[in-house]
This record gives sequence, C-alpha cells and structure tokens, in this order.
Amino acid sequence: MNFCSECGEKVNISVPEGDNRPRHICGGCGVIHYQNPKMVVGCLVEHDNKILLCKRAIEPRHGLWTLPAGFMENNETTMQAAERETQEEACANVEVIELFTMFSLPHIDQVYMLYRANFKELSFSAGPESLEVELFDESDIPWDEIAFPVITESLKRYFSDREKGQFQIHTGAMIKQTQQPVSFHVTTLNDA
Amino acid sequence: MNFCSECGEKVNISVPEGDNRPRHICGGCGVIHYQNPKMVVGCLVEHDNKILLCKRAIEPRHGLWTLPAGFMENNETTMQAAERETQEEACANVEVIELFTMFSLPHIDQVYMLYRANFKELSFSAGPESLEVELFDESDIPWDEIAFPVITESLKRYFSDREKGQFQIHTGAMIKQTQQPVSFHVTTLNDA
Repeated sequence: MNFCSECGEKVNISVPEGDNRPRHICGGCGVIHYQNPKMVVGCLVEHDNKILLCKRAIEPRHGLWTLPAGFMENNETTMQAAERETQEEACANVEVIELFTMFSLPHIDQVYMLYRANFKELSFSAGPESLEVELFDESDIPWDEIAFPVITESLKRYFSDREKGQFQIHTGAMIKQTQQPVSFHVTTLNDA
Repeated sequence: MNFCSECGEKVNISVPEGDNRPRHICGGCGVIHYQNPKMVVGCLVEHDNKILLCKRAIEPRHGLWTLPAGFMENNETTMQAAERETQEEACANVEVIELFTMFSLPHIDQVYMLYRANFKELSFSAGPESLEVELFDESDIPWDEIAFPVITESLKRYFSDREKGQFQIHTGAMIKQTQQPVSFHVTTLNDA
C-alpha cells in the first residue's frame, strides 16, 4: 500500500496513538488503513463414500488437486460462501451440513473453513478455475498431488473421523516451520 | 474507495473479465482491489460460574456491556486473537478452551467467533477501550444493556448449554430483518 484509497495522498507507516502496531496512515486525510486476515471457505462433498476434488486450472499449484474453496465475499455467510465456491469450481449444487475444520494459517493471513456438504443433485463438472472434477475413493486420493497442506490435513481428519463413525469440528492452526523442507506444526483444540 | 492504493490513480467500479461481481479496478495500473469480510474474535471467560463482561468506553454502543472481542490482526491465529483482545480490553490473561459460537453477520461483512476460555491467573481490570470489567452471575447479566445482538445470542446459548451440562460449537448466521423494530433471524447448523 503506497497511496490512500480515500484521498489519493501518500501513506506512511507508523503506530497510531493508542495502538501498538504499525499501520498505513494517510499523510493527507489521516485515515488509518487496517489490514486483516481473509477467510477461505469451501466444502468436503461426500457421495457414495467418495469425496469431490478439483484439479486446479489456476496458479498457485496449477494441476494439483484441492477441495472446492475460495475467498469469502462481502454480504454473504460462511455457509453461502462454501456453497457458492463449490458451485463455481465444481459446478455442483450442494448443501452444507456442518463445519468440519477451521485452521488459522498465520503465515499467509488466512483462516480456512471447510464444511461437510451433500449434493442437492448429483451433478458436477469443471468450472473455469478447474481442469477436472472427480469423486475419489479414500484409497484413490492422490496424496502426493494435493495442492495445499491444509487440504491434506483436512482430508486425513475426515477419513479418520469417518472410520470412527463420528464427525467432530476440528479447530486450530497450522504453523509453518522455519526449517527446510517446508513443514507445519498443527495445533488443535479439544482433540481427543 | 476512490484511489488505487498501489499507484494513486482513480479507481472505477466494474465487473472484471471472468468475474461476476463489481470490483474496484484501477484505471492506471489495472489492479483489482477486492474487499472481504473481517473476523471479530473474542472470549467467553468463566470463573466460579460467572462470566466476564466489559462496559464499552468507545463507540459504537458506548456504555453498554459486551464480551471482550475485536478485529483479528494479520500474522496471528484466531485463538491468539481471542486471547489478545481479552488482554487488551479486560487486562485478563486467559487461555482458550474451544470455539463456542461462530456467526456470520452478512449485513456488516463480519464473522464473529467467540471462544470459551479460562483465566490463567485471576486478575482483570478495564483496558483503554473499557469503562468497567466485571464477573456476572447468570441472574445478574444486564440483558437490556448488552451492546450487540450476537453477544446476547452467544450468552443465551452459553447458559443453555451449561445447564445441559454439555457445550457444543454453534455455527450459523444472524440475518438482519428489514422490518422495524430491528430483529435478527438466527439460523444455525446442527442444532439439536
């Protein structure tokens, strides 16, 4: 951020009075421009013991598999965002059942929320951001070709809960470790 | 938003190619400025059957009571945000136990997340944004002086779950009704 979105003047970075963090402050009108994390919301859609995955047609991670998910928009609920993203990426008309995972990813200022969902009608195909959309048995999940660690973590917990016969809500954080190779320390509340 | 925060040129509102919503697009450098909902995160701190409330020293709703909560910052987790806000508003050092309510408030582009929490040490006082901080018995909660409907809804569910002897995670939305007086239609997933 270089310029004020209100008045067009240059912004400076400093700690406002009564605050304790550096912010972008307009040198002209004085407006403080806060920056906050974004929510990425999507669905784990199950049918006939299979899970719906999308092969990404866009960067990052073009060609890798993910769950249908994307940035929550203004003027919608998290449930509507999850259903909308599934419609857009997998052309699938679904209904959310319940929240399944909510993970903070502080290194990229995102909170990921994935909902379990059912098809309203059994129909899906690749939207503009997907190359392919497919239902996978647990044994066929392309574990080495999953786009994001938070998706791998969520899928593992899904199949683990399904085997136990009881889905719970998993809330926590995935903290990127500084050592190479890239890995994450996953902390969750209330895990049995 | 009137000006591009990257280059300072005027922004226009139009639907980008391949998108389906109007966005702020820079007439100079072409950057699309997305706007997304914010997370408000806080704590339900219980001690000795009492709940910690803060009397607001700031607008909106100056002088009314609320749970310690505020906007999640970049580079933190939702749990850290909940504990930090409780420290800032109630000078209380707490540890979150588990998510309790997550409500979308689409009319103000917010998602509220409230965590159950315990004191690490029993000490609290008014931070700069609070006039008073107090522990309330259920029977003493100032129901007519609660700052926000989402707080009232969360407190009601808290006492109801506590009476049942089992806390669950409540996820849903509070939809503002258009009729006067102001009211909300509360929808939740998976409520028994």
